[in-house]
Amino acid sequence: MKKYHLLTPGPTPIPPNVAAKSAEPILHHRTKEFSAIFNSVQEGLKYVFQTKNDVLVIMGSGTAAMEAAVANTTSAGDKVLVCSVGSFGERWAKLCQAYGVDAEVIREESGMPVNPQKVQDALKKNPAIKAVFLQHTETSAGTVNDLKTIGKIVSETPAILVVDAISGLGGEELRMDEWNLDVVVSGSQKGLMTAPGLSMASLSPKGWKAVETSKHPKFYWDFKRIKKSIPDGETPWTPAVTLLQSLNEALRMIKEETIEKVWEKHRRMAKAAQAGVKALGFSLLSSQPCSVLTAAKLPEGFDGGLLIKKMLNDYGVSVAGGQDNLKGKIFRLAHMGYIDAFDLVVGFTALEKTLGNMGYKIPAPGKAAMEAATALV
Amino acid sequence: MKKYHLLTPGPTPIPPNVAAKSAEPILHHRTKEFSAIFNSVQEGLKYVFQTKNDVLVIMGSGTAAMEAAVANTTSAGDKVLVCSVGSFGERWAKLCQAYGVDAEVIREESGMPVNPQKVQDALKKNPAIKAVFLQHTETSAGTVNDLKTIGKIVSETPAILVVDAISGLGGEELRMDEWNLDVVVSGSQKGLMTAPGLSMASLSPKGWKAVETSKHPKFYWDFKRIKKSIPDGETPWTPAVTLLQSLNEALRMIKEETIEKVWEKHRRMAKAAQAGVKALGFSLLSSQPCSVLTAAKLPEGFDGGLLIKKMLNDYGVSVAGGQDNLKGKIFRLAHMGYIDAFDLVVGFTALEKTLGNMGYKIPAPGKAAMEAATALV
Repeated sequence: MKKYHLLTPGPTPIPPNVAAKSAEPILHHRTKEFSAIFNSVQEGLKYVFQTKNDVLVIMGSGTAAMEAAVANTTSAGDKVLVCSVGSFGERWAKLCQAYGVDAEVIREESGMPVNPQKVQDALKKNPAIKAVFLQHTETSAGTVNDLKTIGKIVSETPAILVVDAISGLGGEELRMDEWNLDVVVSGSQKGLMTAPGLSMASLSPKGWKAVETSKHPKFYWDFKRIKKSIPDGETPWTPAVTLLQSLNEALRMIKEETIEKVWEKHRRMAKAAQAGVKALGFSLLSSQPCSVLTAAKLPEGFDGGLLIKKMLNDYGVSVAGGQDNLKGKIFRLAHMGYIDAFDLVVGFTALEKTLGNMGYKIPAPGKAAMEAATALV
Repeated sequence: MKKYHLLTPGPTPIPPNVAAKSAEPILHHRTKEFSAIFNSVQEGLKYVFQTKNDVLVIMGSGTAAMEAAVANTTSAGDKVLVCSVGSFGERWAKLCQAYGVDAEVIREESGMPVNPQKVQDALKKNPAIKAVFLQHTETSAGTVNDLKTIGKIVSETPAILVVDAISGLGGEELRMDEWNLDVVVSGSQKGLMTAPGLSMASLSPKGWKAVETSKHPKFYWDFKRIKKSIPDGETPWTPAVTLLQSLNEALRMIKEETIEKVWEKHRRMAKAAQAGVKALGFSLLSSQPCSVLTAAKLPEGFDGGLLIKKMLNDYGVSVAGGQDNLKGKIFRLAHMGYIDAFDLVVGFTALEKTLGNMGYKIPAPGKAAMEAATALV
């Protein structure tokens, strides 16, 4: 009978009308009825990506689209630059390694964004660099990178800029075309408010040129093959029909709200969450916090793993802990997609109660939840 | 207001209780609640595959699992044998080509199964062959291969046997362990009565040995990584939670019915469909027809494409046409998964009506539907 509250960075809560779409009778994928949904999803994704380019839809979580980006735009032995500001930056490095791609890695300290100057310097020093990989928002640290500045820098070189916007898309401002982003990948289960199972990739004309020379083996997520079938309103392989039915409804909601208002709502939520963290007496992990997730540092010696577990077990409230070297040391509160201001109030109330139960002295009882409530308009 | 009837080989109709599961509130995938579902799916899949081996679940349609099988068990330059009895056999050949794997291809005439003697001869002539790829049921032709005999032949050599059981699993008899099958791949949207988006691969100990030496680049569908997380009741990447909720329910239904009874039902449906085709005055494409789909040859010069289109437009009944060199020359009636005897009656009624509308003289009006009805028990 316990009611669950999901404040995790994917899967995120699914609006009931979006969930209901996935239970509708299944359509065959070679029909005009399916093509109408497919084309509508295509238009909706272009709007959310802020691009005129096609958006390729493949099955898999975001990591599938990240791998597909590496497999389609590089070749073994290529020199590339990876900018890592957390665990998902490291994933780019691991993917390059798996594909025999020679990656130079810029690693920033936990919580710091990529320094655009370092990107510029690296590209100047090594003009053979064919691609720059980075995150839009780094979910492990709650950091947003300055894509606009980095996009300009990379656009003045022969390299392409490949962006993981898995947790950022549909929450954090992103303008693919205006910011000169060459490859943007994302997933269905975060800002897009849909169940996990779909991922996307969009490529600029410069990105497509890189595809032409790529030599890695690929078949199922061969970008050229997927692009070729878009004008026919279909996919080369059987698509995840029910997930696309859901995604279409979620995109309709975003269009109705307008993407600018969606970004604004996320900014407001982030500010409220940051104030809530401070009210609890903690500090933010990130020096350049993103709009979709807030990461807070716990006091030295505090058992962050237990905090997460107790919040879920005692109150049914699910937030995320730290990953890799941050394990046990932070908590992360997602405020993306369908998560709203009252969910934040619930999250901070559960945090305060659990922290209290664990013996932590709350500096100003009740203040964190009321800070969260400032996100209400 | 038109009611649609889906008699296509994937997606197949989804039972309402299975569809409803996908609309339930989303669970986070690192929870004991999700692990319980994951473990139950694991047990259910082992039962349907008739194996003691783990069954790896990946996101994607069946082609993703086919590619993953090639990427995980071979290396560039390897010699392999592909047995092709239709379009999906050709897919194995194309996948091998994409990965630089040197495939010798045995091609049988349309409608013929693989001749096991040819497999034995090829393996004898070329002991360097590392893997044999073939279909359980070839969906483009409605043919079932003799996996039991071929399994025995391959098991006596160092080669592994890799089986595409995408359309056959959960309909056509398949006994992975007893028949010495080393790699079996399948998908969610056929006999497993679930929406498209999930695919599976199971490997024998001999299959896992082949994985150890494979050198292709891979990350997202790296079999070793996926296997490693199974004992923890999870997947390395965010899984398609809602599709797994559905699949768990579909597997529960199959277990309740027992797999032997499910196979028997499909055999009965196939016999009824074959009799229906003959009653319409047509002949079967396949000399060794499978239990999950019936392919019928249309008279010379008859427009098969128009037949399919008219059945869908006029009556809302969706059957499949021919692919590649069989385009326009055949129709294919699926009777897999949740498709039942009354659906077959509907299918044959729509066929007879549409054929009549197109000027074809029905030999014995009403007979085909009554032959289909013999599948009722």
